[in-house]
Amino acid sequence: MIKVGIVGGTGYTGVELLRLLAQHPQVELRAITSRSEAGVSVAAMFPSLRGRVALSFVAPQVGNLEDCDIVFFATPNGVAMEQAKILLDAGVRVIDLAADFRIKDPAEWEKWYGMKHAAPELIAEAVYGLPEVNREKIRSARLVANPGCYPTAVQLGLLPLVESGWVDTDHLIADAKSGVSGAGRKADVHTLFSEASDNFKAYGVPGHRHLPEIRQELSIAAGKTIGLTFVPHLTPIIRGIHATLYARVAREADFQALYDERYRAEPFVDVLPFASHPETRSVRAGNMCRIALHRPQGRDTLVVLSVIDNLVKGAAGQAVQNMNILFGFDECAGLTQIPVLP
Amino acid sequence: MIKVGIVGGTGYTGVELLRLLAQHPQVELRAITSRSEAGVSVAAMFPSLRGRVALSFVAPQVGNLEDCDIVFFATPNGVAMEQAKILLDAGVRVIDLAADFRIKDPAEWEKWYGMKHAAPELIAEAVYGLPEVNREKIRSARLVANPGCYPTAVQLGLLPLVESGWVDTDHLIADAKSGVSGAGRKADVHTLFSEASDNFKAYGVPGHRHLPEIRQELSIAAGKTIGLTFVPHLTPIIRGIHATLYARVAREADFQALYDERYRAEPFVDVLPFASHPETRSVRAGNMCRIALHRPQGRDTLVVLSVIDNLVKGAAGQAVQNMNILFGFDECAGLTQIPVLP
Amino acid sequence: MIKVGIVGGTGYTGVELLRLLAQHPQVELRAITSRSEAGVSVAAMFPSLRGRVALSFVAPQVGNLEDCDIVFFATPNGVAMEQAKILLDAGVRVIDLAADFRIKDPAEWEKWYGMKHAAPELIAEAVYGLPEVNREKIRSARLVANPGCYPTAVQLGLLPLVESGWVDTDHLIADAKSGVSGAGRKADVHTLFSEASDNFKAYGVPGHRHLPEIRQELSIAAGKTIGLTFVPHLTPIIRGIHATLYARVAREADFQALYDERYRAEPFVDVLPFASHPETRSVRAGNMCRIALHRPQGRDTLVVLSVIDNLVKGAAGQAVQNMNILFGFDECAGLTQIPVLP
Amino acid sequence: MIKVGIVGGTGYTGVELLRLLAQHPQVELRAITSRSEAGVSVAAMFPSLRGRVALSFVAPQVGNLEDCDIVFFATPNGVAMEQAKILLDAGVRVIDLAADFRIKDPAEWEKWYGMKHAAPELIAEAVYGLPEVNREKIRSARLVANPGCYPTAVQLGLLPLVESGWVDTDHLIADAKSGVSGAGRKADVHTLFSEASDNFKAYGVPGHRHLPEIRQELSIAAGKTIGLTFVPHLTPIIRGIHATLYARVAREADFQALYDERYRAEPFVDVLPFASHPETRSVRAGNMCRIALHRPQGRDTLVVLSVIDNLVKGAAGQAVQNMNILFGFDECAGLTQIPVLP
Repeated sequence: MIKVGIVGGTGYTGVELLRLLAQHPQVELRAITSRSEAGVSVAAMFPSLRGRVALSFVAPQVGNLEDCDIVFFATPNGVAMEQAKILLDAGVRVIDLAADFRIKDPAEWEKWYGMKHAAPELIAEAVYGLPEVNREKIRSARLVANPGCYPTAVQLGLLPLVESGWVDTDHLIADAKSGVSGAGRKADVHTLFSEASDNFKAYGVPGHRHLPEIRQELSIAAGKTIGLTFVPHLTPIIRGIHATLYARVAREADFQALYDERYRAEPFVDVLPFASHPETRSVRAGNMCRIALHRPQGRDTLVVLSVIDNLVKGAAGQAVQNMNILFGFDECAGLTQIPVLP
Repeated sequence: MIKVGIVGGTGYTGVELLRLLAQHPQVELRAITSRSEAGVSVAAMFPSLRGRVALSFVAPQVGNLEDCDIVFFATPNGVAMEQAKILLDAGVRVIDLAADFRIKDPAEWEKWYGMKHAAPELIAEAVYGLPEVNREKIRSARLVANPGCYPTAVQLGLLPLVESGWVDTDHLIADAKSGVSGAGRKADVHTLFSEASDNFKAYGVPGHRHLPEIRQELSIAAGKTIGLTFVPHLTPIIRGIHATLYARVAREADFQALYDERYRAEPFVDVLPFASHPETRSVRAGNMCRIALHRPQGRDTLVVLSVIDNLVKGAAGQAVQNMNILFGFDECAGLTQIPVLP
Repeated sequence: MIKVGIVGGTGYTGVELLRLLAQHPQVELRAITSRSEAGVSVAAMFPSLRGRVALSFVAPQVGNLEDCDIVFFATPNGVAMEQAKILLDAGVRVIDLAADFRIKDPAEWEKWYGMKHAAPELIAEAVYGLPEVNREKIRSARLVANPGCYPTAVQLGLLPLVESGWVDTDHLIADAKSGVSGAGRKADVHTLFSEASDNFKAYGVPGHRHLPEIRQELSIAAGKTIGLTFVPHLTPIIRGIHATLYARVAREADFQALYDERYRAEPFVDVLPFASHPETRSVRAGNMCRIALHRPQGRDTLVVLSVIDNLVKGAAGQAVQNMNILFGFDECAGLTQIPVLP
Repeated sequence: MIKVGIVGGTGYTGVELLRLLAQHPQVELRAITSRSEAGVSVAAMFPSLRGRVALSFVAPQVGNLEDCDIVFFATPNGVAMEQAKILLDAGVRVIDLAADFRIKDPAEWEKWYGMKHAAPELIAEAVYGLPEVNREKIRSARLVANPGCYPTAVQLGLLPLVESGWVDTDHLIADAKSGVSGAGRKADVHTLFSEASDNFKAYGVPGHRHLPEIRQELSIAAGKTIGLTFVPHLTPIIRGIHATLYARVAREADFQALYDERYRAEPFVDVLPFASHPETRSVRAGNMCRIALHRPQGRDTLVVLSVIDNLVKGAAGQAVQNMNILFGFDECAGLTQIPVLP
């Protein structure tokens, strides 16, 4: 049993971490902090946890987070970079579910996130927590930068192509659709039910914060700078990301075999038969990415469909997967829930 | 480990049974039958089960259901009454998730269900599978009639009142709202997305099949015939029933204490603090009924709010709970999933 | 052509007023004010109005509202009571879509709305704008208190019963379900898509602000104080209220004939055949209330179903209907849109 | 006033035609046929039309459609090709909202629609009813092939590019998302609320029937065969199509000016300011296409966003627009409804 703390548990990634960790066989939840909700019982705020999580939110300073073996930051961007160092110095492992340590170039990060980075020295140390790429590095990491939701769906969908170099990596297209929980649990007119339901729209087309993250990681995988057009959309579902990915074939090959082989040993990536249509609900509430390949009309444009639950494989579930790797647990521990359908 | 079979697993209660049973520590899934889908892999039809359920649907006659310890009927009304006897005779326990054995009076059943009952002799033997009322009888039953979804929500909400006799039981009102999955997974214009979403309506107000079931069981609990006005509505959610129950106070008492006491030992009934507002999502995908009491403006009308997931505590979860009781397992085995929120 | 101004047009009742008034044959939109959005083009904020409304929001003080023939207040509670007097003194008619002038007893209003009333002298003068009750008074009014959405649906559903006195008016029950737009266009966690969709809940059961309004008006109609239990619920639809109303029969009568007769001449109340089930989408975006009666199992409890679009007959449409009456226009002018289905 | 008939009015395009035509100042609805619903009042089936459409469905043979000036076919594919000739011979104009006359090559049509074409001689005569391209031809047509919903959104979004030749027309990509009403009002498991809500998926990626239609028309516009990858998706909204279109720049130019100029005189195409994000709800229930251009990060990939209501500009509204052109009416007659938001 390891002692686990959560900083900022009042958002959707926070409550999802609680759902997963409360069922994890090797985890003892020790503290969950919230500046605004200190003193409130977690189960009073999230009644789904009644009878399952006995903790109350505590103020950050009384959380005794240094006594934990690991602390998750489920906070807005800019919080973990202020607080991670003191925990790391105390020997606590840290997984940040926000973006503070995802972008290797501090200047680039500051441009997209609009604030000064408080701990650039930690960026270099942080391991980008996509297990399907960095499993070995994660094993020995102190600080894990948990990937964003769009970046997880898009990278897992494109990795075999950019690693192989069998497509034109200068003109990749990621047309991605996200459920509304990706916007978080904060009061905002644009994600009200009356605004977002029965409605579909693109947003952030000129430039979205997840673009540099995807570009950085796919460029590493490609061994050269890739070119990507990334268009995010909001679709009226609670959970789920569906990435529709387009790549021009540069070298003929058995692409289905490429994907089957690349992900054969991955417990949380499921390559469907050729020309399948994965649905977001097939991964709802589960830590899974399902991928399918298409080659419409046999033309030279490949279409890859990739779906995840943005709160699980795109956030809390992947964080627990990273924790399992960090502590040498079975990588699937606490992550065996079957997706909820319908 | 017990050997389990499912008859008719292509509907929503079927796939929900599969989700729950595939995670149950004492269950080995042996056969799942479907006349229309024989030969199809379960996971091909329900991709959420990929990697978790290896079975394919088989035709009813080749299912070797007699080799199972227990068989669930997740079939339309009228199927179990034809097939239960041969299984019971072979020593197999049977839980029917449809309505065939719920109504004690065959004539009443035939009136509401519009067909001749094929096994009236089994009706008398069948135990109505609401564990909070009939736990002891279920323990030794061969045949369990699993309650309907509305009846579960309404009965658990009203039981303490009718058992105590502290309200006017001649004029109970149950204003119930159901998610659309309650209508099942069958092609029907009225439950199309374009008909049922962004829309709210009552239906079946002149008389709904769940009325005689609720009336029968509450009358047993009351020790006399109760009077009930039951108005079901369709609300655009996938899973969930919200019953809003009205009863006129006949004798002043501490009603909150009555409920707290009645359900103190029940693992799957959660009485909230007085004047709470349970949401359907607080039980989404979990085997739980949450109940709250109100006494608006201190007037003589009690309001009881009762929520369940119609596919879990209202169907498959309750069936697994009954199975656990039948076989002497921990009643919570396989039913510890935390509800999915958001 | 009359000159029309709107105070506070950035909410849902505001944009709905704009949709209706921009199509009204006798209306010239002159000004729309908003403190926060002054200078912003209305069509930039609500692209559905591109090419149809050329106005920009202006600050309240530069609106020249005194030059209008009529001004609508589509503001939060508490604004109209501050500003109506100066307009009325300038000869401008005023329709308040908020609650400032609905409750005749200032103390009662202050209790429910939590602020001091700024213009109690205007309360007495204000006419409660339910045309089906007060048409003649509205005709000569200077100041109209436009009814709330729940109160419109509930009153139209119960009026024939309380006016006739043929039911027990001490124990009326209104189980009402509202779409989320009823909560307005303001940032609030509880009405986020991820909170309100795929979810159903009651709220405000101990006491909702619309209770005193309904009670007051039904008591006037009954000629005595009525007793009402009012339970509002939130259902995941954008527009629509469905009121399910329960009353105990006190005197046998032909209730269907009662309703048919009561509403025969009403252009915006549609009594359906006995035992119908009106759906909210049958009035979506239209100024209509549809009502149906039931007498389940012939028992002594009447069930009345009443549906409106909360933004139209429950707010902006009713306000335009009141304007039409005030100025002697055809009562249906600008209100002939057919509801949008599906 | 012209006399109008509708064949097959029980689907969504049928009821939408009724909504629009019942409000059209120059139309007298004469007959609406339905084999299955003959004798049923239109308003009984679609209560939104109560008080507005007095017709009942009649059997096809008693419709006296030959007495009409124009007949709309709102039927499944394959019906109009059987019945159009007799009407045309009687001097009746015909607009087919299905696909029977859209594809110029009968062999191609038969391949995609899986049946023998019954009236190949009419294909040549039929005018493809996209007013923004074929307005003059429509004016004198007897038979109009009303475009599909996806084809309308995609063509209007790409026309300026393919007409100008300023992009690589061999590798166009159309990533399109449709509301569920596009699948029609027919019993089908895949479009049930419980299947389609809270879910997002692609479908028909190997080949969708609208692909040859789009390819044919864009090739005509380009003056050469274009290459297109078309990926349709189902999004849980009732009405709306959002097409996200990708094209590689072949010649630098002011693309925004190109679009502004191309559509300046079009009453139902609205080009938004550069880098806008049109939402489907901004055209909900209105006959409008809104388009916005993007050039993400200034790279060589143009992104065009195009939204319509699939039942209006994508079906019934466009059909009425075509009728207006055919009869020399104001092109906007009966089509001035402001979109419904929220």
